[in-house]
Amino acid sequence: MSTRKSTSALATTGFLENFATMSTFGATSGGGVDRQAATPEDRAVRSWFSGQVTRRGGRVQFDDIGNQFGLFELTPGAPYVLVGSHMDSQPLAGRFDGSYGVLAGLHAVSALADERRATGETGATGVNLAVVNWFNEEGSRFSPSMMGSAVYTGTLALADALAATDGAGVSVADALSEAGWTPVCPPPQVAAYAEIHVEQGRVLEDTGTDIGLVSATWGARKFRVTVHGDQGHTGSTLMADRRDALFGASLVISAVRRMTEEVAAGALQASVSRMTVEPNSPVTIAREVTMNIDLRSPDPDILEWAEARVAEVVASAEDEARVRVERELTHQWALNPYPSKGVALAAGVARDLGVSHREVYTVAGHDSTNMKYTVPTVMLFVPSVGGISHNEAELTRDGDMLTGVEVLTEVVRRLSETVESGGD
Amino acid sequence: MSTRKSTSALATTGFLENFATMSTFGATSGGGVDRQAATPEDRAVRSWFSGQVTRRGGRVQFDDIGNQFGLFELTPGAPYVLVGSHMDSQPLAGRFDGSYGVLAGLHAVSALADERRATGETGATGVNLAVVNWFNEEGSRFSPSMMGSAVYTGTLALADALAATDGAGVSVADALSEAGWTPVCPPPQVAAYAEIHVEQGRVLEDTGTDIGLVSATWGARKFRVTVHGDQGHTGSTLMADRRDALFGASLVISAVRRMTEEVAAGALQASVSRMTVEPNSPVTIAREVTMNIDLRSPDPDILEWAEARVAEVVASAEDEARVRVERELTHQWALNPYPSKGVALAAGVARDLGVSHREVYTVAGHDSTNMKYTVPTVMLFVPSVGGISHNEAELTRDGDMLTGVEVLTEVVRRLSETVESGGD
Repeated sequence: MSTRKSTSALATTGFLENFATMSTFGATSGGGVDRQAATPEDRAVRSWFSGQVTRRGGRVQFDDIGNQFGLFELTPGAPYVLVGSHMDSQPLAGRFDGSYGVLAGLHAVSALADERRATGETGATGVNLAVVNWFNEEGSRFSPSMMGSAVYTGTLALADALAATDGAGVSVADALSEAGWTPVCPPPQVAAYAEIHVEQGRVLEDTGTDIGLVSATWGARKFRVTVHGDQGHTGSTLMADRRDALFGASLVISAVRRMTEEVAAGALQASVSRMTVEPNSPVTIAREVTMNIDLRSPDPDILEWAEARVAEVVASAEDEARVRVERELTHQWALNPYPSKGVALAAGVARDLGVSHREVYTVAGHDSTNMKYTVPTVMLFVPSVGGISHNEAELTRDGDMLTGVEVLTEVVRRLSETVESGGD
Repeated sequence: MSTRKSTSALATTGFLENFATMSTFGATSGGGVDRQAATPEDRAVRSWFSGQVTRRGGRVQFDDIGNQFGLFELTPGAPYVLVGSHMDSQPLAGRFDGSYGVLAGLHAVSALADERRATGETGATGVNLAVVNWFNEEGSRFSPSMMGSAVYTGTLALADALAATDGAGVSVADALSEAGWTPVCPPPQVAAYAEIHVEQGRVLEDTGTDIGLVSATWGARKFRVTVHGDQGHTGSTLMADRRDALFGASLVISAVRRMTEEVAAGALQASVSRMTVEPNSPVTIAREVTMNIDLRSPDPDILEWAEARVAEVVASAEDEARVRVERELTHQWALNPYPSKGVALAAGVARDLGVSHREVYTVAGHDSTNMKYTVPTVMLFVPSVGGISHNEAELTRDGDMLTGVEVLTEVVRRLSETVESGGD
């Protein structure tokens, strides 16, 4: 029995130190990060990450939508197994969401590249390795979310993405150009993809499981809602004459939330976010409110029912508040399975490493959601303490992070073998 | 019988043309104005107004808080009868609110000054005349509202007012200094005050009355409310784990509105306005919401009951949404009578001019609310079509405006006589 550490164990070397350093970029006082896409904080962490790639022998390259690739080209011209996630964050968010997966990806591919270089097999295999830091996964500064992977996989037109603007009117095109993230070479040709992410839920923690094998994404329906009322005086406009857009919006918000109590616990998530109020002046009744409604369920029947309930809720709010409500379905997807071969491959890895594992659903979308339509894809979860997400208090324990790096490394190795053997 | 027009009739000369010109400053496409305090639009209309004062033989002067006085000094050293209102507006507001009263005031005092000059009585009376355009009555750019008259009458400290900042962090002090509204002489010594304003209600219209004699201001309680929740993921954070500040706020907003249905129609006005949501990002549950609650009633018992109901509503929202709600009483006043002698004086004028009139309450606050504590004060209303207020569609008919100018002119004359005779 050799005392030499396995490559997957070597992949964890220095990981926690690197994770701590990465977390200083855009660090907030509450232990989280605020690192929205292409802000100075996002630019700083990407610059640091470029250094991490090159010191491990990789080459950094951007594509047209600002995706940051770290390429470990061992066999010139061969396709890549790609692994990664995103380093941008929501405002005042946790330091794990996305970032953990990018750094884990770098440690995995650089350890495997080291192994291949050490064993002299560099020219013998038909696969290269790369890590990716997708652009604007969060969608908080520029809409839509998962922008980088959507453009990369062709589900979003590059021109539309570049034209998106933030609250200050700055376009993605300008932000990318100012950041200097310009492509010099064509993007890598990818044959398989892996991603690891914090769960943002409590299934792994509640069941004492180390690794989640993501088998599907919950279905979702997302709406943009505009409530049209009439501006007035909060003091003098008679109650009977009011058409208060904020009152109308409040009826929709509370009713959407209460819908979740009409079905079994855990069967429906429903929320309202991102609200604007016009003119939002004191002593003035709101003339217009806009907001997002977000419905998610693993059950298509419940999702269908929820959309119908939203229509009822809106009609009732229109009636009581004497407002007009416009509702636009902006995104929808049904329960969306991940490739079963990828789930089986990851299960094999976990079993061989002696790591406890179970299949889980993801409620949130991930860049792998886009990638799985184009190449064999594996999506892994590590536990989130209390399931806390989009919050500075988000936490994944050190041991769980390291276990994840080990599993990811072996998953990338086996994906490479699968690609090499021409199978899927 | 003389065919010479009376002074009050002469005061209306050119009024509608001047009103139309005034309404072009900050004009909006919907027929209203957007002329928040000390913005370029407010500065432009004040500059135009200065020209109107000087061409009628008046002198323009500012005080420390940017109140704009047009002084018609006929008897050097004598006290002033002051008349005016404000030209600043809410965002996308009507063109009558405040502005009508300032221009009516100028027409009234300049007609009376012309009369005195023509009759050679300039040196014979012990009173001077002035029009005022109070600074920041609306409070939409800088808080609190009625700022200029509050500082002038000593209910708000000058230093506190100068330190107030707008949403972009610009202080009142900087805004005044940039506008060049600096005092050169001490403010006029005022012995009586009159103001005319659009009703912002429907009593005059519904009863077919030309002039309202304002006898009291409704009582009010205003609160600043902060809802503290926990940031989370709109998709993945379990419903049972959520502490959604926006959900909590929606429960308060809808319950505050519905309170008004628990009392007799017209006995309570209750609203929520000026809301901020943090972090207000898509896919993120709000961690904090702030908003204003505004309660108004002529009945102190109902106001007391309403404040207690707000406490219940807030406790219930805290419970259901698992949030914590801070509530600060920022303003309160009881039913606040105007001086009865002023009401009687105005009634006498209306009777003598053959103008239909009735006593009315004002729900909204006015600069006269501050002035009436310090000097004899008269507050008049002209009808508002449909009571529409803080809205581009606000309308007062031409004939009603002209009737108001005539009544105001005679009111100012009689106030002057009262001051001269040493009575109140």
